[in-house]
Amino acid sequence: MAAAKTGRSSPRNAFYAQSGGVSAVINASACGVIETARAHRRQIGTVYAGRHGILGALHEDLIDTSRESAAVIRALRHTPGGAFGSARYKLASLERNRAEYVRLIEVFRAHDIGYFFYNGGNDSMDTAQKVSEIGRSMGYPLTCIGIPKTVDNDLPITDCSPGFGSAAKYVAISTREAALDIASMARTSTKVFVLEVMGRHAGWIAAAGGLAGRSSADAPHVILFPEIAFDRDKFLAKVKATVERRGYCVIVVSEGVRDAAGRFLAEAGTKDAFGHAQLGGVGPLIAEMTRSALGLKFHWAVADYLQRSARHIVSAVDVEQAYAVGKAAVEFALAGKDAVLPVIVRRSSSPYRWTIGEAPLGAIANKEKKVPRSFITADGFGITAACRRYLAPLIEGEDYPPYRGGLPDYVEIKGAPVRKRLNKPFVL
Amino acid sequence: MAAAKTGRSSPRNAFYAQSGGVSAVINASACGVIETARAHRRQIGTVYAGRHGILGALHEDLIDTSRESAAVIRALRHTPGGAFGSARYKLASLERNRAEYVRLIEVFRAHDIGYFFYNGGNDSMDTAQKVSEIGRSMGYPLTCIGIPKTVDNDLPITDCSPGFGSAAKYVAISTREAALDIASMARTSTKVFVLEVMGRHAGWIAAAGGLAGRSSADAPHVILFPEIAFDRDKFLAKVKATVERRGYCVIVVSEGVRDAAGRFLAEAGTKDAFGHAQLGGVGPLIAEMTRSALGLKFHWAVADYLQRSARHIVSAVDVEQAYAVGKAAVEFALAGKDAVLPVIVRRSSSPYRWTIGEAPLGAIANKEKKVPRSFITADGFGITAACRRYLAPLIEGEDYPPYRGGLPDYVEIKGAPVRKRLNKPFVL
Repeated sequence: MAAAKTGRSSPRNAFYAQSGGVSAVINASACGVIETARAHRRQIGTVYAGRHGILGALHEDLIDTSRESAAVIRALRHTPGGAFGSARYKLASLERNRAEYVRLIEVFRAHDIGYFFYNGGNDSMDTAQKVSEIGRSMGYPLTCIGIPKTVDNDLPITDCSPGFGSAAKYVAISTREAALDIASMARTSTKVFVLEVMGRHAGWIAAAGGLAGRSSADAPHVILFPEIAFDRDKFLAKVKATVERRGYCVIVVSEGVRDAAGRFLAEAGTKDAFGHAQLGGVGPLIAEMTRSALGLKFHWAVADYLQRSARHIVSAVDVEQAYAVGKAAVEFALAGKDAVLPVIVRRSSSPYRWTIGEAPLGAIANKEKKVPRSFITADGFGITAACRRYLAPLIEGEDYPPYRGGLPDYVEIKGAPVRKRLNKPFVL
Repeated sequence: MAAAKTGRSSPRNAFYAQSGGVSAVINASACGVIETARAHRRQIGTVYAGRHGILGALHEDLIDTSRESAAVIRALRHTPGGAFGSARYKLASLERNRAEYVRLIEVFRAHDIGYFFYNGGNDSMDTAQKVSEIGRSMGYPLTCIGIPKTVDNDLPITDCSPGFGSAAKYVAISTREAALDIASMARTSTKVFVLEVMGRHAGWIAAAGGLAGRSSADAPHVILFPEIAFDRDKFLAKVKATVERRGYCVIVVSEGVRDAAGRFLAEAGTKDAFGHAQLGGVGPLIAEMTRSALGLKFHWAVADYLQRSARHIVSAVDVEQAYAVGKAAVEFALAGKDAVLPVIVRRSSSPYRWTIGEAPLGAIANKEKKVPRSFITADGFGITAACRRYLAPLIEGEDYPPYRGGLPDYVEIKGAPVRKRLNKPFVL
């Protein structure tokens, strides 16, 4: 690497980092980045990964991915979680904490890093955009490319976000399976089943629960979206009518459901009138509401991390797209693009056809795409045919990991550290 | 069927019912019963199924399975839940409610039912035993055969219970997947992850979470069993040490965990000091304990019905055994056996070899098999090598359902009712 520092005789290195909440397929994007970089060794030197995301760059704690075998890199495609470690760490604004940005550039310079690939959501695209700006202002040539990722599917411009399709598939399947269970039990036991899913600000994952049913008679009978203010009376009336008609009621509730005043129901439930902490999220809260108001026996499940790490039942489309955006990010860099990210462009829904497009980082940064009203039924409790047309292709196909001894054979990276070149610890 | 009533010229019919909590593979047992009966049409007439289990018999609400195609019956093998409906209904003792037993025999007589196949747990084996006795005392010839089923794995004598292996596989996989997620996030975010699993009285499912790790360094770092009295201080010390050493701590907790006084932790948590209801189960309670005592950021998941209905990731061994006990039940009946049930007999663990054995109904009825102390590590927080040897074969192999449009293609039965012959409604 020494040669790389003295001139352009050797190709410059790359830095790749995972950011924010991980998913079942973010490592497929890492696989796409590393395999594509390896296929272009004359243009890109070593791919360094940040140990725990951007913190790895700030602390000069880099992982040398060239020490990982081709088989290990390939196996990232079927391994959930963030293999290099992620971080919930948002760089402050350039004005407020210029030192962090300067430090990043110093570390990049020390390791002759010419390419910055940042794999995350809207916050991360904002960071990548700023890093691009500071590099330019400091006279350090740096290509900054984003790689979209979020199970929440709330990134604008891109048709969908890698990670979402798999969470959606997990929730749709789990809802269908649990519904068969309740249907069996309802006569003498459980009448209401509540599944709480992720999506703090957008109800895409909750909407995906709607795919479990083929018609409006099928479960789930009620979906509670963050986009629709929760109306207790209307909700209870719907549950009551459903139980009377079908014998049971299956409810999918987004963790982000709010009341008419905009308060999260889950937070409203964290303290009772005496200020005592209440355990549990919005799922148990909603379930308990049906018991206390309607006297119905309930069960509830909270999928939490299970829904975003369930690599065993990912959408094959999602894996392909996650890999494709990683690959495209490197190809964009090689094509001389900067401050952009690859996005998914839908060409048609049936048959499903998609291509990779391109968007400026700034167009994605700090924006949220919510579920449009036209995707939610008039009563606010279901998904429309338009929503179904949008969602259905995203959960298509199965892509099973290999198994050993009855368990998925997920890979662990060696994670060899890169020798530090700066003798300056950095305090965040 | 009229001929069947007048003599032995036609074979007698069979009654099959599902009982108690359903599983991902109970329909595979139904498939085994019906396919095997169909292969012996000269000995067994029509298989009637109880709509909602034994209630179907009491209310003379029978499903004519002969109206279901061979393809539908075959598809039961890959469909979770109880296709005919189950019931949580335990017949009272013969002394207290003889009328119910007499009614059963009346319905069986009206439909010339000579075989009673009851698919359930220890309560159901008790019921089957009593039905056998009353039949004999009423001079009505009836062959009563049990078919074991419970995700809790707490039936005695049988090496394992159909339904358990799949719940075990689901929990082991989910624990491994969530652990990879936490490992990615722990540096800046979640330090403790709690997965609550089923098992009110026995910790078999919780134990299965232990299969997620290959060594004691791997997640789960703590398993909380109903068999071990919960010791708050010891638990918190273990979590603290684990987070200091590994950076995070993954906990699998059985819903049935109790304190030293034998009280369920989950129930202790349902009311606070002022008598206010607390939402949530033992999972959130344990998670909140680590936050309040140790200041750790947590996430928790409650799998609930998802773990017992996840047909998408069943154990192939479990499916085979569930089918095998259904098939064996019919074969036992044809061989003239009565008041017995087929059980799983382990011949060897490595390689795994099993056969079908036979046990009297009375030996299973109302008994519980707990996790033996030798299967739990000395500190009470993990599983031993002996436990691993026992559990590992039970989650072996994958048996994926067919998919359509990204979702498992589960079957729905036609459920054609059998014309009633008694003109007496029965009040429970």
